[in-house]
Amino acid sequence: MKCSRTEHICSFIVMDVLEKAQELEKRGCDIIHLEIGEPDFDTPLPIKQAGIRALEAGETHYTHSLGIQELREAICRNYEAEYGIYGLDPDQVVITSGTSPAFLVALGAVLEPGDELIITNPCYPCYPNFARFLGIIPKFVKVYEEEGFQYRIEDVKNAIGPRTKGILINSPANPTGHLLDADRLKGLAGLGLWIFSDEIYHGLVYDGERAHSILEFTDKCFVFNGFSKKYAMTGWRLGYVIIPKPFKRTVQCMVQNFFISANAASQRAALVALTDDRVVTETKKMVDEYDRRRKFMISRLKEIGFGIDHEPKGAFYVFANAKSFGSDSYRLAFELLEQAHVGVAPGIDFGTNGEGYLRFSYANSIEKIDEALNRIAQYLEQRKK
Amino acid sequence: MKCSRTEHICSFIVMDVLEKAQELEKRGCDIIHLEIGEPDFDTPLPIKQAGIRALEAGETHYTHSLGIQELREAICRNYEAEYGIYGLDPDQVVITSGTSPAFLVALGAVLEPGDELIITNPCYPCYPNFARFLGIIPKFVKVYEEEGFQYRIEDVKNAIGPRTKGILINSPANPTGHLLDADRLKGLAGLGLWIFSDEIYHGLVYDGERAHSILEFTDKCFVFNGFSKKYAMTGWRLGYVIIPKPFKRTVQCMVQNFFISANAASQRAALVALTDDRVVTETKKMVDEYDRRRKFMISRLKEIGFGIDHEPKGAFYVFANAKSFGSDSYRLAFELLEQAHVGVAPGIDFGTNGEGYLRFSYANSIEKIDEALNRIAQYLEQRKK
Repeated sequence: MKCSRTEHICSFIVMDVLEKAQELEKRGCDIIHLEIGEPDFDTPLPIKQAGIRALEAGETHYTHSLGIQELREAICRNYEAEYGIYGLDPDQVVITSGTSPAFLVALGAVLEPGDELIITNPCYPCYPNFARFLGIIPKFVKVYEEEGFQYRIEDVKNAIGPRTKGILINSPANPTGHLLDADRLKGLAGLGLWIFSDEIYHGLVYDGERAHSILEFTDKCFVFNGFSKKYAMTGWRLGYVIIPKPFKRTVQCMVQNFFISANAASQRAALVALTDDRVVTETKKMVDEYDRRRKFMISRLKEIGFGIDHEPKGAFYVFANAKSFGSDSYRLAFELLEQAHVGVAPGIDFGTNGEGYLRFSYANSIEKIDEALNRIAQYLEQRKK
Repeated sequence: MKCSRTEHICSFIVMDVLEKAQELEKRGCDIIHLEIGEPDFDTPLPIKQAGIRALEAGETHYTHSLGIQELREAICRNYEAEYGIYGLDPDQVVITSGTSPAFLVALGAVLEPGDELIITNPCYPCYPNFARFLGIIPKFVKVYEEEGFQYRIEDVKNAIGPRTKGILINSPANPTGHLLDADRLKGLAGLGLWIFSDEIYHGLVYDGERAHSILEFTDKCFVFNGFSKKYAMTGWRLGYVIIPKPFKRTVQCMVQNFFISANAASQRAALVALTDDRVVTETKKMVDEYDRRRKFMISRLKEIGFGIDHEPKGAFYVFANAKSFGSDSYRLAFELLEQAHVGVAPGIDFGTNGEGYLRFSYANSIEKIDEALNRIAQYLEQRKK
């Protein structure tokens, strides 16, 4: 059963891929999963140990609704060290159970029902769903492969109407793996709308690139981040949002009401993630390994005949042009699953402008990636005949 | 800053009490906290050990969006054993990060903006705020001390208008500690509206009473429950909602989008809470201790001159009539805090019909409760003069 609020909220197509994959696996097929959006690494040991210590010490009670003070302070220091952002107040940092629910709070705090939010097409499919659930209208702005799927400031300007109140940005981006460069971030910030910046893939950036925080360019923003991707902590469900000072009171009321607080032990673990030098070594290793896979995947996909106009330099995705193999990405994804036994995410899952592309995740071992791409190569070769 | 969605969402008054208490504590005052809504016990050891084992074993990844299958099955078996509810499908059970966010999902799945939801006055102050955030209109129905703050079916009937779609119930209730009896539950179920039943205080019931699940009376309901209260697991942030079959697809999409999944280790811990015999012994001990405090608190409050018409038989609250000490519960609560150094929650925090009452929590040791009530007695005695 549906209501007007939920009628356009649908399951991700990638979930259909996953279901089909599981069905095939039950029948004995060996499927390689490149459709996944989750680090394949385990959480680094010092972080796990901190979580365990917290439980042993009986940290099993509610925390402050915004999160433990030390963690919020560590996040402020982190934004100082990483981006040169000074003057953040720990009360502007709101710890949530994963980053996702923070979008409901932030969008709900700013936009009225009927207001519009600019979102890229293609984009992470949850973004328009957060908006729709709140009665906010997603206003899609197409982004193009030839510009590394970055917003064209001119196109964004043209999309702004009287009820357009915010712009959602995501750099490095899911599904494209691309970063927004400093000039475009500055251009977007200069438009004067509220910016909602999903910075969850910060830390997973390669090849000497640097991800900028929107806070370097404007205070009129909400910054979403968390521990899931960089620290391989998806199952700990810990994220945060940095909010503008005028929203402190409103947002605190919202989280008191809607979430009470985030997991106590996860917060202790996250504090160690941000402050323990051993974790720096561990995450460096993960980043190096992602980068090795990234280079391998890009070069192999090109050999096979996929188009990669600009090299993606962040996250763990390659959004490859598959138009030479067919225009229907849904069909192609299922074909690769059923015939080559490799799971990939069809571009259409991320918006109409993602049609003709496939998202390959390199959150899998290089051996598996190698084997998967060999299977795909062989299948596509044979299909030509 | 506020928008129309958030302008009526305010902080709980009890938070003001807590803030003032902390200020006094900083100045060296010894404050006894009876304003709290959280078990003072630690999580039972076998549950903590299960959480630790899960982390050690690397259960640090996303789980199924609805929660791990074993936990959802255990919850179904629990509703069989406790209430004789058969035929629940584990896919009707949705595990969430605490019980609170489940309200956003369930109410948002059923009620359109502009629809009305019937809620008791007084009530847990988050309920109307969940509604307001979603554009749903809270329709308050007064409940009265002389009937143990239970809904009058006649009054509920009279409150139903063309846009009234749901009734929110909470038994045992916060703030009153009272249970809805089977006849009234049957009567409410018979009205044909969607019932949203918060059963989070089930398990904390005393004196041979039994809490009924709304599922004993209707399928047209959403049941909210979790591990925070009965198992003293507030900091683990783990709750669930049992949804009607026709909403399975919609709700799964919502949780995939908005929450991804709940904490992996907390889910393993919760599974042990439901299935380990040692936990039964531990929770029995906690319930016996709550009951001892309850009896002590009721008798002592009556001696002091507070009115308790019906004995509360559940949760860990006594909602005492304080009208003989003044009609302004906010003022009285701050007076008791500042003069007697005891924190209590003013009845007005829970709605206009809670005015003149104070909520005393017995989630504190019997020694502290004794000392707190002595201080209050002494202060009120002296105040008369």
